[in-house]
Amino acid sequence: MRRGDTMTVIEQMGKNAKEAARVLASAGAKKNAALSAMAAAIENGEKEILSANGLDLKAARESGMSESLLDRLTLDPARIKGMAEGIRGVAAQTDPIGTVVGGGVRPNGLKIEQVRVPLGVIGIIYEARPNVTADAAALCLKAGNAVILRGGKEAIRSNTCIAEIMRAAAEEAGLPKNSIQLVQDTSRASSVEMMQLTGAIDVLIPRGGRGLIQSVVQNSRVPVIETGSGNCHVYVDDSADIDMAANIIYNAKTSRPSVCNAIETVLVHRDIAEKALPVIKARLDEKNVEIRGCERTREILGPGVIAAVEEDWATEYLDYILAVKVVGDIGEAIEHIARYSSGHSEAIVTKSYENAQKFTEQVDSAAVYVNASTRFTDGGEFGLGAEIGISTQKLHARGPMGANELTSTKFIISGSGQIR
Amino acid sequence: MRRGDTMTVIEQMGKNAKEAARVLASAGAKKNAALSAMAAAIENGEKEILSANGLDLKAARESGMSESLLDRLTLDPARIKGMAEGIRGVAAQTDPIGTVVGGGVRPNGLKIEQVRVPLGVIGIIYEARPNVTADAAALCLKAGNAVILRGGKEAIRSNTCIAEIMRAAAEEAGLPKNSIQLVQDTSRASSVEMMQLTGAIDVLIPRGGRGLIQSVVQNSRVPVIETGSGNCHVYVDDSADIDMAANIIYNAKTSRPSVCNAIETVLVHRDIAEKALPVIKARLDEKNVEIRGCERTREILGPGVIAAVEEDWATEYLDYILAVKVVGDIGEAIEHIARYSSGHSEAIVTKSYENAQKFTEQVDSAAVYVNASTRFTDGGEFGLGAEIGISTQKLHARGPMGANELTSTKFIISGSGQIR
Repeated sequence: MRRGDTMTVIEQMGKNAKEAARVLASAGAKKNAALSAMAAAIENGEKEILSANGLDLKAARESGMSESLLDRLTLDPARIKGMAEGIRGVAAQTDPIGTVVGGGVRPNGLKIEQVRVPLGVIGIIYEARPNVTADAAALCLKAGNAVILRGGKEAIRSNTCIAEIMRAAAEEAGLPKNSIQLVQDTSRASSVEMMQLTGAIDVLIPRGGRGLIQSVVQNSRVPVIETGSGNCHVYVDDSADIDMAANIIYNAKTSRPSVCNAIETVLVHRDIAEKALPVIKARLDEKNVEIRGCERTREILGPGVIAAVEEDWATEYLDYILAVKVVGDIGEAIEHIARYSSGHSEAIVTKSYENAQKFTEQVDSAAVYVNASTRFTDGGEFGLGAEIGISTQKLHARGPMGANELTSTKFIISGSGQIR
Repeated sequence: MRRGDTMTVIEQMGKNAKEAARVLASAGAKKNAALSAMAAAIENGEKEILSANGLDLKAARESGMSESLLDRLTLDPARIKGMAEGIRGVAAQTDPIGTVVGGGVRPNGLKIEQVRVPLGVIGIIYEARPNVTADAAALCLKAGNAVILRGGKEAIRSNTCIAEIMRAAAEEAGLPKNSIQLVQDTSRASSVEMMQLTGAIDVLIPRGGRGLIQSVVQNSRVPVIETGSGNCHVYVDDSADIDMAANIIYNAKTSRPSVCNAIETVLVHRDIAEKALPVIKARLDEKNVEIRGCERTREILGPGVIAAVEEDWATEYLDYILAVKVVGDIGEAIEHIARYSSGHSEAIVTKSYENAQKFTEQVDSAAVYVNASTRFTDGGEFGLGAEIGISTQKLHARGPMGANELTSTKFIISGSGQIR
């Protein structure tokens, strides 16, 4: 805040959030009561939410939004029920706050405990999907944090409706309304201001496409957790079970191509390529997946396969498109991944113990699989409960982030007059 | 790197470090062998190091460096021995890499392990003390990280000599020389370039004064761990043992005033102030500590005490100066700390169970003490081994950071063909 000026709206929200966070830090079981009340209130507010969402959809259609984005924006009774169930799932998780994660008694008698505490105030900058409003707010609250939500302009009416329902439920459960705040200004200015709000916002988590995430990572002064961008690979080793490889590739590419844990490139050992590639292609043809292949791939599969260019190895298609490259050995596969991967999820299909060890040890990504689909990189699938995103950075949290990853720790030291 | 251009020196160092980091990630026991070799080489290089340090000291004296800074810059046989012992201490610690920190078998049979891995490449930007070169390099290497060191210009000859000795020892032990690199350009440009080197440097840790740290925090695109700034407090509760309070305050202020875990402000409950303040002052007078008091403090201790102004509550003196304020109750003390503390270390002196609980729960700092001196906030004192700094932020690490805090994790998932 500039000295002497009045606060901006975002600064005021930061101050409100700080105050709410101090209450939330020791709110204990009230948090779960509030989450249960929120889930019920979301269900009871179905009509209201659908009506707000209808206005968003109308405006989006008029502005010419694509069908796939319209689908992301759309709420229906089943999706609203899903939001409520998601909140109940978060309530059912163990509360991380107060967990003693380390400590002991020192030779001088000092008793040291390292305990989990909330991060404080979390900012979430996200795009079109209104269910993120409910998910993110619930997880932040579970870990004792106040949250400032800044969604996209397309979903502003839906988001406002959901946030207001959750704020009212929080207040009824005896927690500050400002535990959850939604930024109404959806212009770029509000994001930029959030990125400068050090001292009030403890961490920013962007959720959305690569453009959004890179913009936050590059411009924020507030610490950022980078999430979600996934240029994922499957490497088919020379010893692979070909049917298993084709099955995993088919699943990892086509079960949901638009998500970050879907694969974008397959690397195939040259000694198995001639046998494996036609089997893989036959599976992918079921869903009309477009293959962009290296020279050797095209020799094997025929010139009907599009020739891959350098850019293909670096692209997250998020579509029914797959880049395919034949490699000389596992070392070349690991090098390729080191060069092009976004560090999200990679898999090897192999029968070789040695190569499984080598791949999991040398591939530097958040999740490294042997003989399984990359699609399992997900908080729920890993048994962490709901997730706020998948971190592709190494600092603080890596991989799916649940309530635990929304905490910090502090040391509590109990003495009897010790001096040093 | 700009496309088509040749790399700058710093970019080349980033590339070298990335390559070294890939070797270090699975270097296992070679790391300890290298550390032992480095310790011996530092001892054997005593003459060489003292000679380089002598040149630094000569230049510093000629440029009019203050006595206290000259002391920080000075090496002698005992300090060199201390550096070598520090490296041996790091070698003796448990290797964090490969530790399984979580995991289990999922209902679908997937076996999930979350294991500790190195962060990758760590940049350290620091000031005058040449022993940081040895400390930081050893700790980064222990956790399997390559390090790029950028020290101050005053110590460049000492730092270069120490770094070259350690690089040679690393190479002899079979590790890449570029596990440790020292930036020769000590102008501001080299720091700025390091702060922009995302993709090559995984984390930057500034070590030094508040100016240096804030400059890095505010300007870096590379993730930063904020360390060290300490505006620490002791609160003397109405139920405190006055002699214990005076003893703790004397220790926390005077045992080493220039370090971050020394206290800068004492808060005293009004009901004990009249009895406690004269006892506290008598102890502080032994070291001629200058007291800057609130109005009530001056009423009790006399007008000889300097009147504190607003700025005093926010100042990290790092000197024989102490701000003193009488507060109405523990709530006011907690509020004062929330407002002015840098989040490093705070202590309460009390006999009240309730107030001890309240203080440790509500004070939001990295280390919160009951009846002990804040001077214990230190990796060695906490039993963590050597430390790379004391984090005052909440993300990734908080409090003293040892080798564990220089790691990330990854998930390794072993399957038998699972798809989702």
